[in-house]
Amino acid sequence: MKPSIPKGTRDFSPAEVAKRQYIIQKMRTHFEKFGYQPIETPSFENSETLMGKYGEEGDRLIFKILNSGNFFFNKKKIELPESIQSLQLNSAETIAVNELVELNKFTNNISEKALRYDLTVPFARYVVQHQNEIEFPFKRYQIQPVWRADRPQKGRFREFYQCDADVVGSTSLWQEVELVQLYDSVFTDLGLNGVTIKINNRKILSGIAEVIGASNKLIDFTVALDKLDKIGEDGVKKEMIEKGISETAIEKVQPLFNFAGSISEKIAKLSVLLAASTEGMKGVEELQFICDNVTDLGLSSAILDLDVTLARGLNYYTGAIFEVAPPKAVAMGSIGGGGRYDDLTGIFGLKNMSGVGISFGLDRIYLVIEELGLFPETVTTTSKAIFLNFGQEETKYAMKAITQLRKEGIKVELYPDNAKIAKQFQYAEKRGILLAIIVGNDEMQNNQFAVKNLVSGEQQKVSFDELKSLLQ
Amino acid sequence: MKPSIPKGTRDFSPAEVAKRQYIIQKMRTHFEKFGYQPIETPSFENSETLMGKYGEEGDRLIFKILNSGNFFFNKKKIELPESIQSLQLNSAETIAVNELVELNKFTNNISEKALRYDLTVPFARYVVQHQNEIEFPFKRYQIQPVWRADRPQKGRFREFYQCDADVVGSTSLWQEVELVQLYDSVFTDLGLNGVTIKINNRKILSGIAEVIGASNKLIDFTVALDKLDKIGEDGVKKEMIEKGISETAIEKVQPLFNFAGSISEKIAKLSVLLAASTEGMKGVEELQFICDNVTDLGLSSAILDLDVTLARGLNYYTGAIFEVAPPKAVAMGSIGGGGRYDDLTGIFGLKNMSGVGISFGLDRIYLVIEELGLFPETVTTTSKAIFLNFGQEETKYAMKAITQLRKEGIKVELYPDNAKIAKQFQYAEKRGILLAIIVGNDEMQNNQFAVKNLVSGEQQKVSFDELKSLLQ
Repeated sequence: MKPSIPKGTRDFSPAEVAKRQYIIQKMRTHFEKFGYQPIETPSFENSETLMGKYGEEGDRLIFKILNSGNFFFNKKKIELPESIQSLQLNSAETIAVNELVELNKFTNNISEKALRYDLTVPFARYVVQHQNEIEFPFKRYQIQPVWRADRPQKGRFREFYQCDADVVGSTSLWQEVELVQLYDSVFTDLGLNGVTIKINNRKILSGIAEVIGASNKLIDFTVALDKLDKIGEDGVKKEMIEKGISETAIEKVQPLFNFAGSISEKIAKLSVLLAASTEGMKGVEELQFICDNVTDLGLSSAILDLDVTLARGLNYYTGAIFEVAPPKAVAMGSIGGGGRYDDLTGIFGLKNMSGVGISFGLDRIYLVIEELGLFPETVTTTSKAIFLNFGQEETKYAMKAITQLRKEGIKVELYPDNAKIAKQFQYAEKRGILLAIIVGNDEMQNNQFAVKNLVSGEQQKVSFDELKSLLQ
Repeated sequence: MKPSIPKGTRDFSPAEVAKRQYIIQKMRTHFEKFGYQPIETPSFENSETLMGKYGEEGDRLIFKILNSGNFFFNKKKIELPESIQSLQLNSAETIAVNELVELNKFTNNISEKALRYDLTVPFARYVVQHQNEIEFPFKRYQIQPVWRADRPQKGRFREFYQCDADVVGSTSLWQEVELVQLYDSVFTDLGLNGVTIKINNRKILSGIAEVIGASNKLIDFTVALDKLDKIGEDGVKKEMIEKGISETAIEKVQPLFNFAGSISEKIAKLSVLLAASTEGMKGVEELQFICDNVTDLGLSSAILDLDVTLARGLNYYTGAIFEVAPPKAVAMGSIGGGGRYDDLTGIFGLKNMSGVGISFGLDRIYLVIEELGLFPETVTTTSKAIFLNFGQEETKYAMKAITQLRKEGIKVELYPDNAKIAKQFQYAEKRGILLAIIVGNDEMQNNQFAVKNLVSGEQQKVSFDELKSLLQ
């Protein structure tokens, strides 16, 4: 049987690891430049830390860990409800609620730990647990894998990295300003010029809901409005009406259908539109502060855009909402997102801690950089040269050079076996190593090295010092 | 209820992450310099990949993951053996073998994946699965966490990193030479001068077993011999006899009781002692090759030592055995180990693939560096300076400078809120930030910045360019 890995998981080859590390390293550098400090939390948490934090759907997607070793010994008796013993489950439809409850009870009986589902809940847990060691505001970043029992599909994995920067313990809108700058800083350094950082505010959305007089229709409203480019004003309005939003309501927010212009112009329009909504106007004020200051300070390559249809995290964000679209040349969904949540740590009993943060989508960023051919050629872990193996004496001579070169920080390797020379060349080529170093009797006698470029085929004899310069 | 993490797991604070990353980054650099390529494998593997590979004890320590989501729907009927339903388990003693078998069947029924227990088995699985994409010999390194359901205790965790470098597909002893150099290279760069790289060979141990005529007593023999320093020759011999090793046998290996001297001297003694054992003499020859070449090429700071009592991995190593002891100033167990195993990938059906590798113990290396005070002061993620917050206009002025400084790669941050100035200073001090930058009316009018050293208390006014040089 051919060995395999669980569906939704991945092996990463050396080339892939090098590219992923390149992105991660850039993120670390910029996170720290902006004053974010790294933390790491365990891969698994106590189940009660995670369960109930991500909604019903989320709970179902959390990977649970079976109590280890002699877990049965911890129980006086294994309690297996009769209802479970006799369950006949052929499809999702046949399970009754009371059966599900029994199943969950049973599961909790044999599992007390679960794999991290995201980095936000562990961060909140960390903050509350270590509150006496932490100085607030606490700016932390965290780059670690998370696990979700989602149905795997293209671009969706059961194990993937999240890269988060959050600050907790300050309501200052300068945080939002800095987070926009951080996005700009990272993406510019990765060569991803022209990403669009979309910004919105939960309070603006609440204001719109007030104005249309239907807060329960807010998502239907934003989803429809988001299609303006595709289906036109009439199409959008038709969809809104189908969703039960009244014509009167739609009329009230008519300016949103012609919402072009600069950010200042958009903000001016919102001020008029939301004049009657206290919360809406608070949102306008926040947006204005963030956008004005970002604009004053200037962005390196990113474009800031106000997008009132941006409604991610509607259930938890309370202020700013962010989403980053890749450069227009690439057809891909968002490569980052975030927002402010006024009560980050309340779930663990620490009240009044406002948090704001952003996340980078490592896998998508990787794909975008790959598609645009923006990984530098230097992003590789491959050796600069390989010393071929012509026998023991030659190899001793070669190893003296290799040892010296490595001390200079140069990546070189030895072909370990005295195999046929054609095989050694083939190995070097397939590995993508540019230079093969040949040491025969001649070279040993003259204190030289023959260097063969495996692409051009050129060959030259050099001294050790010349070899060193060549490889540096 | 105060939130907590599962026993045996750890949160890492910013200072700890910075230090761990410092070690890991050094390892990566040296691994790659020696031609090792990084791979990463999923955190969980299919259970059949891991089970049965680590012995009975190992199997018990593997964390199993509960089939996710609607896992019960995949079964037509949940099979719960009657024997389990009625189990009454009060202690480890009361379980019968047949009950254990039933428990295992049941466990396999509800769990198909398990967390990685080490990096070697996933590496072997990777090699076999990707054999057509890999050029052999394949030198890979891997730095990832592993999980073991061991009883947690001081220095033993349920989640910890392994850092492995292995090469598969070559029997060349130059690999062993390079691995000794790699240890030397990493530890020297970490400032850990004077580690002892102990080397032995499985074939030497087999030779000794032959000579004492009791291969089943080999571990008893090496364990006793290892106590020579502590309990003296008489004590060791007494223990050997108690363990059932005959006096005649002990006499035959008398030279091992006076096994001082240089490596060459030790090898000479072994040549005499093991002259009658073909396998033992093969081991002597291998040791000689490795030690001669390591000596010829020279080590930067590590000490190579032949230790015939070194018997780690007796069940799988077939050639060289390595273990690294920290510098003598530190009382701690081994900080690294490894060896050669002739059939690395046979368990997954790919025969005749010899492998040799070494492992670095991240947690212990961390403790040793900490104890010796060898972490450079620059190993920190803390900002170089914090701009205090005196109000909106001042902050706008400050943010212009911050934005510029960050573009130069300098770590600076802003105190986000216009809090009382004493509170801001206190925050900076507690965070361990050396410089506070003060921007008031005066500074703004003169295009200056007041820089206060929070340790010396000194304060000076500087221009932006001066500030930049100061922080660079």
